[in-house]
Amino acid sequence: MSYDRDSVSKLLEAARAAARTHLGPAEGRALCEAYGIPVPAERLARESREAARLAAEIGFPVVMKIVSPDILHKTEAGGVVVGVRSPEAAAETYDEIIAKARAHQPAAQIEGVLIQRMVTGGQEVIVGALTDPSFEKVVAFGLGGVLVEVLKDVTFRLAPVTEAEALSMLDSIAASEILRGVRGGDPVNRLAIARIIVAVSHLVSDFPQIRELDLNPIFATKEGATAVDVRVLLDFAPPAQRYRPSRDEILRAMNRIMRPEAVAVIGASPEDGKIGNSVMKNLINGGYQGHIYPIHPKAPEVLGRKAYKSVKEIPGPVDVAVFAIPATLVPAALKECGEKQIPGAVLIPSGFAETGNVEGQRELVKIAREYNVRLMGPNIYGFYYTHKNLCATFCTPYDVKGTAALSSQSGGVGMAIIGFSRSAKMGVSAIVGLGNKADIDEDDLLTFFEQDPNTQVVAMHVEDLKDGRSFAEVARRVSRQKPVIVLKAGRTAMGARAAQSHTAALAGNDRIYDDILGQSGVVRAYALNDMLEFARCLPMLPTPKGENVLIITGAGGSGVLLSDACVDNRLKLMAMPDDLDAAFRKFIPPFGAAGNPVDITGGEPPTTYRNTIALGLQDPRIHALILGYWHTIITPPMVFAQLCAEVVEEYRRKGIDKPVVASLVGDVQVEEASSYLFDHGIPAYPYTTEKPVAVLGAKYRWARAAGLI
Amino acid sequence: MSYDRDSVSKLLEAARAAARTHLGPAEGRALCEAYGIPVPAERLARESREAARLAAEIGFPVVMKIVSPDILHKTEAGGVVVGVRSPEAAAETYDEIIAKARAHQPAAQIEGVLIQRMVTGGQEVIVGALTDPSFEKVVAFGLGGVLVEVLKDVTFRLAPVTEAEALSMLDSIAASEILRGVRGGDPVNRLAIARIIVAVSHLVSDFPQIRELDLNPIFATKEGATAVDVRVLLDFAPPAQRYRPSRDEILRAMNRIMRPEAVAVIGASPEDGKIGNSVMKNLINGGYQGHIYPIHPKAPEVLGRKAYKSVKEIPGPVDVAVFAIPATLVPAALKECGEKQIPGAVLIPSGFAETGNVEGQRELVKIAREYNVRLMGPNIYGFYYTHKNLCATFCTPYDVKGTAALSSQSGGVGMAIIGFSRSAKMGVSAIVGLGNKADIDEDDLLTFFEQDPNTQVVAMHVEDLKDGRSFAEVARRVSRQKPVIVLKAGRTAMGARAAQSHTAALAGNDRIYDDILGQSGVVRAYALNDMLEFARCLPMLPTPKGENVLIITGAGGSGVLLSDACVDNRLKLMAMPDDLDAAFRKFIPPFGAAGNPVDITGGEPPTTYRNTIALGLQDPRIHALILGYWHTIITPPMVFAQLCAEVVEEYRRKGIDKPVVASLVGDVQVEEASSYLFDHGIPAYPYTTEKPVAVLGAKYRWARAAGLI
Repeated sequence: MSYDRDSVSKLLEAARAAARTHLGPAEGRALCEAYGIPVPAERLARESREAARLAAEIGFPVVMKIVSPDILHKTEAGGVVVGVRSPEAAAETYDEIIAKARAHQPAAQIEGVLIQRMVTGGQEVIVGALTDPSFEKVVAFGLGGVLVEVLKDVTFRLAPVTEAEALSMLDSIAASEILRGVRGGDPVNRLAIARIIVAVSHLVSDFPQIRELDLNPIFATKEGATAVDVRVLLDFAPPAQRYRPSRDEILRAMNRIMRPEAVAVIGASPEDGKIGNSVMKNLINGGYQGHIYPIHPKAPEVLGRKAYKSVKEIPGPVDVAVFAIPATLVPAALKECGEKQIPGAVLIPSGFAETGNVEGQRELVKIAREYNVRLMGPNIYGFYYTHKNLCATFCTPYDVKGTAALSSQSGGVGMAIIGFSRSAKMGVSAIVGLGNKADIDEDDLLTFFEQDPNTQVVAMHVEDLKDGRSFAEVARRVSRQKPVIVLKAGRTAMGARAAQSHTAALAGNDRIYDDILGQSGVVRAYALNDMLEFARCLPMLPTPKGENVLIITGAGGSGVLLSDACVDNRLKLMAMPDDLDAAFRKFIPPFGAAGNPVDITGGEPPTTYRNTIALGLQDPRIHALILGYWHTIITPPMVFAQLCAEVVEEYRRKGIDKPVVASLVGDVQVEEASSYLFDHGIPAYPYTTEKPVAVLGAKYRWARAAGLI
Repeated sequence: MSYDRDSVSKLLEAARAAARTHLGPAEGRALCEAYGIPVPAERLARESREAARLAAEIGFPVVMKIVSPDILHKTEAGGVVVGVRSPEAAAETYDEIIAKARAHQPAAQIEGVLIQRMVTGGQEVIVGALTDPSFEKVVAFGLGGVLVEVLKDVTFRLAPVTEAEALSMLDSIAASEILRGVRGGDPVNRLAIARIIVAVSHLVSDFPQIRELDLNPIFATKEGATAVDVRVLLDFAPPAQRYRPSRDEILRAMNRIMRPEAVAVIGASPEDGKIGNSVMKNLINGGYQGHIYPIHPKAPEVLGRKAYKSVKEIPGPVDVAVFAIPATLVPAALKECGEKQIPGAVLIPSGFAETGNVEGQRELVKIAREYNVRLMGPNIYGFYYTHKNLCATFCTPYDVKGTAALSSQSGGVGMAIIGFSRSAKMGVSAIVGLGNKADIDEDDLLTFFEQDPNTQVVAMHVEDLKDGRSFAEVARRVSRQKPVIVLKAGRTAMGARAAQSHTAALAGNDRIYDDILGQSGVVRAYALNDMLEFARCLPMLPTPKGENVLIITGAGGSGVLLSDACVDNRLKLMAMPDDLDAAFRKFIPPFGAAGNPVDITGGEPPTTYRNTIALGLQDPRIHALILGYWHTIITPPMVFAQLCAEVVEEYRRKGIDKPVVASLVGDVQVEEASSYLFDHGIPAYPYTTEKPVAVLGAKYRWARAAGLI
């Protein structure tokens, strides 16, 4: 599609010159035409015979409207007639309209009568665009009409979109079935709508001064789609400038900050209970092997390490400075870091934007930019990078190495991450506090984790995305390789209000977040505990090779609940082929149920579990297993756990590695058995049929978005 | 409203006599008129002047239709004209229709032309009724039109409904806002629609032979509502007879079964590993103080208790017999129980309907009815009644006394109940396995628990309700006093399929279950773990006195997530009055946020938590508290837990008892703190902001349904 940018430029320039904040109908129409968006045919008639001829050319029925710069309220002046159906009627109507207009406003200058194709029928849809403070240009699609408005059935994407993305929007609304034709109705021309979406998305991307745009209604039929009304709002104020360093610049700094060879602690203290003391202890006791340089105004050493009065006195290079001093002292110390060419400052101190001291925070950023220092925080607990044994934090140390990287905007959630990790023995690569996000934000972290060989999955607690567009673009790239999980707090209107009072962040419309995070391949968690469990389990689970999920259960009751959970998590219970059904039946009692779930029944010995699980792993048509264990004396919990781990391990050795999750119902021994299974790479939960399926569902969501299945 | 039952009776009788399975349009219309459901006015004209006069009487526009027993396809015969707008046009149209009909079919007998008020405009709605296998007559309401059909936005209630219930249906659809008038549209006459719903609900209740009924569309306007089209399907087969003993009969048996003075164990065994041995041991070791009578063909005693060859030999009365013998031996033993006048048989054995042996199960029921023995099971683990120290089960014993009664249809879920209870130290009054539900079902249990002084909340895992109507009626009554929680498995289409293969139960449409359980005041749990947590927490939480919920949090981040959870759980975050805001501000740092959440910030000492919680309890405008604790060195987890328990206890002693729940984020010590809080009657969870709010939300759902707030 080629777009006529020049026409639009001129048109917008004229509006800007006239200090207008919106376009008139004719301009809106011209804008559509420039970007190939179909609008109803129209022509200007200057006398009645011409009206008849033009109307015939355009095709009936037509709408006729007076054109006069002096008549503002056309309808009141009798200047609009709809449903004109013949050349004769068009001629008559022309004279009528002129006569009424003259009667209504004798002095009006009249240019003629506009004859417009009257579009009706088909399905009303809406295409629009808006400027989101975080995501910038966003394109929207929905059905038209009051009912849809009430149900808020609209979907969004980051603009510009490809044709494929635009087509996906047609399937993203709840009422999408309508577009495919129901009850004998015609399906709409999907491509025609998609092209309008694409055109709008480019139009607003090419011309940021278009603040909002509505094509409402668009009449979509089997043949095509025509935009009947256009509304365009303008804003010529230049958009806020974002700080967007290149990927290389980000990595140069982030690799040194996150995996430093030398750390300075500004405010290091020998005194128990001080933050600067905790940070020192965590670095030393955590086993960090790089240089640790305490900075202290007087002490010659802190906790046995030689101290310096300023970072500038440190003999060698320093990669990151951890700040443990009061807010008022931060700017001066930060300047010294700049002079020392330290690429990163970890700002634990609070007392900045979160307490209303916005100016103080701005000052830090100014210094940071001037000296090219990246800031983490302020108002954070610090960060952990386990593969360097690095606990650059005043919180408790954590050292279980693994491949999940987690970040949190809030310190409270950060502490939940630490506690959960320790309790669940979750291996992590990094835990990072982002706090006020004066500088380093989720984009920077993602860019780092993308190339960090120790990280395989990234989970982020987010209250606002200061640069949602940039995040979405990075996430789209990263999520193709590594799952990106996001817990977006402030989801709901009520929650969003709390977010504002907490971080002074502008909360986005949640549907926008939902759609754009989805467009970026992000696995969204809707609950804190889900984010934590997804981070724990996704690295354990191999990527499924297809959509066929099989439930094998000892408890029929669990089978039903697990099936419910599959539907909730959009997992596909495979339809059981006859031969496979027969193969399973060989292992289960005659009154057991094959099909899916495979109900082996409750009284079975370990071999039945073993044989059916082995068959599930072996048959290439099955892509993932959900196990429902039922505690019996014949197959006690630990016996099940051990056989299950063994058979999964046996097939892994043979090169067959499928995602397996388990729900264990039974007496308290199922807790130990679940724990054993987790230790052997099988996510397993007691007393819940929901959690294991949610975890598998998250893996599938990621794999689908990454195009792997 | 008085209904003309006689006319309907005659009409249906005629249809039955003619062996018809549906009513014609005129009959449908007559049926509506008999029950006061407005239909468009219509009259039969026999010549053109009469047509003009009648049309004028009816009011324009009108529809005119040929009336002839010989002309089946009226439209093809030119026999239907819509939109006739004047007496003259009516007269002309009359002649036209007659002429066309004659031309089309010269020999046709013509009775005249029907003149019908043409109804258009307003909002299209649908009212219907259907016969559900479990709930019997169910009435439905939804908006009309294709879009609503696609979105499946319809709501159901058990018929008959009151006017208030009918009005509630108008608010139960997603698009309910439409009915109140949007974008300047008129609101509909809600009462007019409600009265139609009420009339339909009575019509189908009065005449069970009406299998299905559709009023579609109904045009609803500001003035009223008119049903334009009526479809009625009939079924004269007598409905299945349900066994519905009276409340007294149920209680006479259930009180003896659940709280027996004497228990016989049929199949009691001295041999380790046998079910009959486990049952004996559980009874004895569980501390049951009533008589225990082992039944054994040969042994003189079992586990030190005198054994009998048959229950008939037992000297005193027996309240319940626990069966631990193979399926084939059950009928004969059951007869003996009948002869001994034992009111209840607990049928642990499997091998009945669940394995395809439907006939064997039917035989048991026949014997049971004959001798007036109630059956629990078959195919169950048995049951527990802790306040009698009774473990009538082969599973592990359980003895933590409390006020929650739980039941499960599946043994697997039963084991999850045991394990969870033990792990969470949940006090229970009873745990009951219902299995195949050949006889005793949820209604019987509810009826018992209603009057059981040891039970304050009932939680049930249900796969199907064999008599949903009866359950709904009992639940409606019980839930006014005690919360009834239901986990309905087989919720989803996929889940429902699994349910069928498991229990051969017919799975209901989930929306019907959802609406009718709601109508009955049931708190529905959508996940196994939720059911368990609700059962654990609801008895702990006092009933809130109003809707105002306040969040007090040390972690701003938790505050946002807790707010999200409030919206998800339909809790109302109270708007903070100025004076209360000022009162909270006195206790928190200047950069903390009052409002709601009250963000006391992270660095605060125990007194800040104490003062703000005390204020939250003290102020009568606040009805429930959600606490967000953040682990810090200044207020460690156990310090928080203790102060929290203390202050809540202090106010309880003063007679102020509000629901308080807590979310704890922090290092692993928050687990111990949560456990301590639970021990002190405060539901508290680590690493999740969702669970505590879900639990409070469940309490609110119940309190609202019970009319307590």
